[in-house]
Amino acid sequence: MTQLKTYLNEHRERFTEELADFLRIPSVSTDSSYREDVRRAASFALEKLQQAGLEARLLETPRHPVVYGSYHVSNNAPTVLVYGHYDVQPPEPLEGWDSPPFEPRIEEDVIYARGATDDKGQVYAHIKGVEALLETEGVLDVNVKFLIEGEEEIGSPSLNEVLRINQDLFAADVVVISDGSMIAPDTPTITYGLKGLAYVEVNVRGAALDLHSGAFGGGVPNPINALAKMIAQLHDEAGRVAVPGFYDDVIDITDAEREAFAKVPFNNEKFAQEIGVSATPGEAGYSLLERLWARPTLDVNGIAGGFQGEGAKTVIADTAMAKISCRLVPNQDPADITKKLSDYLQEVAPEGVTVDATDLHGGYPALTPLDSPAVQAASKALHEVYSREPIYARTGGTIPVVSTFQQLLGAEVVLVGFGLENDRMHSPNEKFDLVNYYRGIETSAALLRAFSRK
Amino acid sequence: MTQLKTYLNEHRERFTEELADFLRIPSVSTDSSYREDVRRAASFALEKLQQAGLEARLLETPRHPVVYGSYHVSNNAPTVLVYGHYDVQPPEPLEGWDSPPFEPRIEEDVIYARGATDDKGQVYAHIKGVEALLETEGVLDVNVKFLIEGEEEIGSPSLNEVLRINQDLFAADVVVISDGSMIAPDTPTITYGLKGLAYVEVNVRGAALDLHSGAFGGGVPNPINALAKMIAQLHDEAGRVAVPGFYDDVIDITDAEREAFAKVPFNNEKFAQEIGVSATPGEAGYSLLERLWARPTLDVNGIAGGFQGEGAKTVIADTAMAKISCRLVPNQDPADITKKLSDYLQEVAPEGVTVDATDLHGGYPALTPLDSPAVQAASKALHEVYSREPIYARTGGTIPVVSTFQQLLGAEVVLVGFGLENDRMHSPNEKFDLVNYYRGIETSAALLRAFSRK
Repeated sequence: MTQLKTYLNEHRERFTEELADFLRIPSVSTDSSYREDVRRAASFALEKLQQAGLEARLLETPRHPVVYGSYHVSNNAPTVLVYGHYDVQPPEPLEGWDSPPFEPRIEEDVIYARGATDDKGQVYAHIKGVEALLETEGVLDVNVKFLIEGEEEIGSPSLNEVLRINQDLFAADVVVISDGSMIAPDTPTITYGLKGLAYVEVNVRGAALDLHSGAFGGGVPNPINALAKMIAQLHDEAGRVAVPGFYDDVIDITDAEREAFAKVPFNNEKFAQEIGVSATPGEAGYSLLERLWARPTLDVNGIAGGFQGEGAKTVIADTAMAKISCRLVPNQDPADITKKLSDYLQEVAPEGVTVDATDLHGGYPALTPLDSPAVQAASKALHEVYSREPIYARTGGTIPVVSTFQQLLGAEVVLVGFGLENDRMHSPNEKFDLVNYYRGIETSAALLRAFSRK
Repeated sequence: MTQLKTYLNEHRERFTEELADFLRIPSVSTDSSYREDVRRAASFALEKLQQAGLEARLLETPRHPVVYGSYHVSNNAPTVLVYGHYDVQPPEPLEGWDSPPFEPRIEEDVIYARGATDDKGQVYAHIKGVEALLETEGVLDVNVKFLIEGEEEIGSPSLNEVLRINQDLFAADVVVISDGSMIAPDTPTITYGLKGLAYVEVNVRGAALDLHSGAFGGGVPNPINALAKMIAQLHDEAGRVAVPGFYDDVIDITDAEREAFAKVPFNNEKFAQEIGVSATPGEAGYSLLERLWARPTLDVNGIAGGFQGEGAKTVIADTAMAKISCRLVPNQDPADITKKLSDYLQEVAPEGVTVDATDLHGGYPALTPLDSPAVQAASKALHEVYSREPIYARTGGTIPVVSTFQQLLGAEVVLVGFGLENDRMHSPNEKFDLVNYYRGIETSAALLRAFSRK
């Protein structure tokens, strides 16, 4: 370890310069005028993987290539796959930046540039981590693979196909993703659970045409009133989702998780204050953090019907629409929940209206057991670097690629974010604290060692 | 009566020609390029009133003049005011017409033209009615006034002010309005009740900004779900409006009305079929017609919130909006109901949201008692003409001018429609059956005689 630390300290300046070079490439994946820049960023990552001692190549897709890298030591050794992305969000609005987004600026040990934390800085920390380990140990007892894509910011349209075609190439026991943040500064965080998604659009129809509310009010079904009544029945008095069978497959929070959550530095009042709400209502019997991280939820995401313009129009609309989504936890199945929700909406539809429910989108939840070897190893590594116990976090977000890795590769997925919540991902003045960058490199090396058989 | 009938029969052809002349004037009030035509129509009505034996003049307004006419016999005689309008809807879409909208065409005793039934044909029937009566009786024992406005199709923006300024000029005991239809062909109909209106826009706010439904779902108030829950509580299980005090001032349907309604040729199945609904839900304990005509109702007229576009967006909106209106019956007060509704919405608002309710529009209900002299006289007149008992109808619609007449003039208002429901008011091929026109003239004369002291 001393040798590694010495190497990391001696090469800090170069690590920073290289990251700055990476950040100078405006690899905006959504804008086709940056297409060559995106490819330049892929080549940059490719070259640096090769310089670190990995075999690497580009896998072409219809749009932007995937960078594949591999250090293979033995078929018997465990395999770690590092996932990240080299593409970035557009820099707009440009006037929000204090310095040009693709001219990295370092001030008080913080580097400012588009992609600094999302995700160039974090994925580059892993490239430097494996470089440092190979330089100081010579031979590892773990196979290391990289999958660095260039389409994350546009929804990873090619990734599933790339993984499906190259399933053997990407075979791994553990997938490590650093594309987020730790829960608080200096607080190592392992995210081991993500929610899934079931998204339904429901259309409620009454009469064949819009009707005058004077001539017809009180004698015809009103689709908006009907839809409101249906939505009101989606939760019970205790804030639980009232769709029959909704909780059938839910793995409840374990006692160990509950204890762990209680130790998380999460402040309910601060949470409410930051988003300007006076209350944080939800499912009874669970703390706010438990609900946000580990309980399935249902929200109406949009509603429309009748007259929405200025002033008064006395119409009974012929139709009303709502978009309703559920966030799922293991082992809920998106298709099953979509069906249960759709059936229930039919069941509670008031007299005189017809209901159509359409499945718009689904995603599986993901959970890596806390006592799994992957989480245990990650925990050990983080403890080594930060000299403190990591926080075990879940999140309400859905990262489709995670369940794809679990399902297609059978791998355990661990998310270890090196960034901070205030790093301004997707916003002007995106930043990455260099101390987190260096710690990220050290953590990457420690993780690879922890995952090895040694 | 024989003398009158003879006169009517002898002058039929001229009555029809004059109506055709009136219909040839394209008095489209909403389109300023027709401004002079609108004035020409006013002058036409003015002249015909004078020829019939009335004193008449134009009362100017910022846009189109009001035609005032008066036959004064005595301060001791009762006064009848006939209200109508000489302006018409735009003729568009022109391709929907089988003949040009302002070139009246007569085919099988039906006259086709814009304004044929709405309202030129009906108001002109009254002009011819008073003419016939004066010609055959010489002196009447009733004062007759006309108020024919030119802005009805644009919402009567000047009428309240004209009435307020000229309150003495328009003083009347009874107001007769023929601007609608009878309930079925050959079925004389007296409309003696109109509903009022209370229209509220409600805005529900949650967080200070739109939130990601993954990161925040289950921990924050959702304004759309909250609004749906509030709307669901606006009716009880029996379909009654659940706003506290909503029914406090409601005059319930009398036994006499109930009996009368039951005799109305109204077919529930036909009603449902025509508008394409499979059920006609509403307040328990009342027939469909009773609900449509004489019970107060509440409908959501519009709703909006969150993502309404194509596909899926996982957002928890910061706000949601609904437009909610109540149709009122005597003696409900629009301001009182607006306040009760607004208070109730506040009361049932779920935890964590704030609610703003704005009064958008109000209108008083109107009811002329069935046993009032005006209704009794109208009934007698219709019986004379049609040799059958008239139908006593109410309607769910609101005609603001009616309550204005009641409140400002203290007059009883009776609506006697000469048209049919399929006369295509506001649509291409608007028509008026000449038999209904002639019956209208006869009815007008009969009404004036019935209202007189003789």
